[in-house]
Amino acid sequence: MKLYDSKIAPSTRRVRIFLAEKGIALETVEVDLLAGENIKPAFLKVNPRGLVPALVLDDGTCIDEVIAICRYLEETRPGPPLMGTDPLSRALVESRTRHMEIDGFSQVADVFRNSTPGFEKRALAGVAEPVAAIEQLVDRGNAGIRRYFDRLEQYLSASPYIAGDRYSIADIAALCFVDFAGWVKQKLPEQNVHTQRWYKAVSERPSAKA
Amino acid sequence: MKLYDSKIAPSTRRVRIFLAEKGIALETVEVDLLAGENIKPAFLKVNPRGLVPALVLDDGTCIDEVIAICRYLEETRPGPPLMGTDPLSRALVESRTRHMEIDGFSQVADVFRNSTPGFEKRALAGVAEPVAAIEQLVDRGNAGIRRYFDRLEQYLSASPYIAGDRYSIADIAALCFVDFAGWVKQKLPEQNVHTQRWYKAVSERPSAKA
Repeated sequence: MKLYDSKIAPSTRRVRIFLAEKGIALETVEVDLLAGENIKPAFLKVNPRGLVPALVLDDGTCIDEVIAICRYLEETRPGPPLMGTDPLSRALVESRTRHMEIDGFSQVADVFRNSTPGFEKRALAGVAEPVAAIEQLVDRGNAGIRRYFDRLEQYLSASPYIAGDRYSIADIAALCFVDFAGWVKQKLPEQNVHTQRWYKAVSERPSAKA
Repeated sequence: MKLYDSKIAPSTRRVRIFLAEKGIALETVEVDLLAGENIKPAFLKVNPRGLVPALVLDDGTCIDEVIAICRYLEETRPGPPLMGTDPLSRALVESRTRHMEIDGFSQVADVFRNSTPGFEKRALAGVAEPVAAIEQLVDRGNAGIRRYFDRLEQYLSASPYIAGDRYSIADIAALCFVDFAGWVKQKLPEQNVHTQRWYKAVSERPSAKA
């Protein structure tokens, strides 16, 4: 089993933290995103969608998408459960993880990919043909990030972790997206005390360095 | 258990088809999206994200997001499995379903919400504050839909269904998104014969009318 990884991307970091929390060590292959290696023929043979992470099994089967990779490992490897422990908690972890992706990640990604020098023609991840940046998505995305920070504060005022009483992949997603927001100079508001408490706790786990 | 539904939305149709395939009948509450009922206080009490579908359990717990709702029902109700039958097929169904959402739905939604009269200030679903439409997203989205149709043809030339030999939620997602693309006048190319064969088969299942 081999993980195609990137040490710099928020999505691959989600998988690395997941692996660290579970104590799983995998062979990894670094894909150089800055050089566009992900959209070159050699990598497109591994994952035609041009995206990392991608987990390639010993028989050559490729599983892409963070959550699909995590679910496969959650079901096949021992370690603490990170995706819920019964039907209801699994559904709630899944729902909250998607909130993080839709309300958080996609907003930050819109700002980042439509405002960063070098991405003027690479506004959509994994797409080899030129896709022009759209300036208005920067303001739209920044407003979305502010709404996302409000949402995090609501969730974390109600429970210690994003999806309840237990650390889960929803926390992993949120940590990666909050740090990703820092790339576009959006910081968690100081007055969001519940989020600040949570952020300190999840950042201090050894897995956060993965 | 009560499902907040909309007879006109592609996302709610995914849940209705899922329920029909499993033979599950649920009490439903229709939410009038055209009147903006989803972003009014009464519904925001049910789902603060202002989105349908939402499944409310008898104890008041709300599960939102299509896939979280489906997973809860997949694990708690009998009926044919629609999300895979073992760790690998579950991961592959999950991965392909996300391809449908990211490569398909989000592209169609970009075209629809940024070009349709009445949505000029409602460009993001569920967001109560005004969000202006961005004209350039229409061209970007239309190019994405064309790439999506190519991707479907690749998948369906390799297997009878989107995620392998068995009908799954990935097919439900794809059917709903192909029909949604019709709203913005994007039709499956005639020469995509594998996709045409698949489209006819999944559209003829009784569940497609749900």
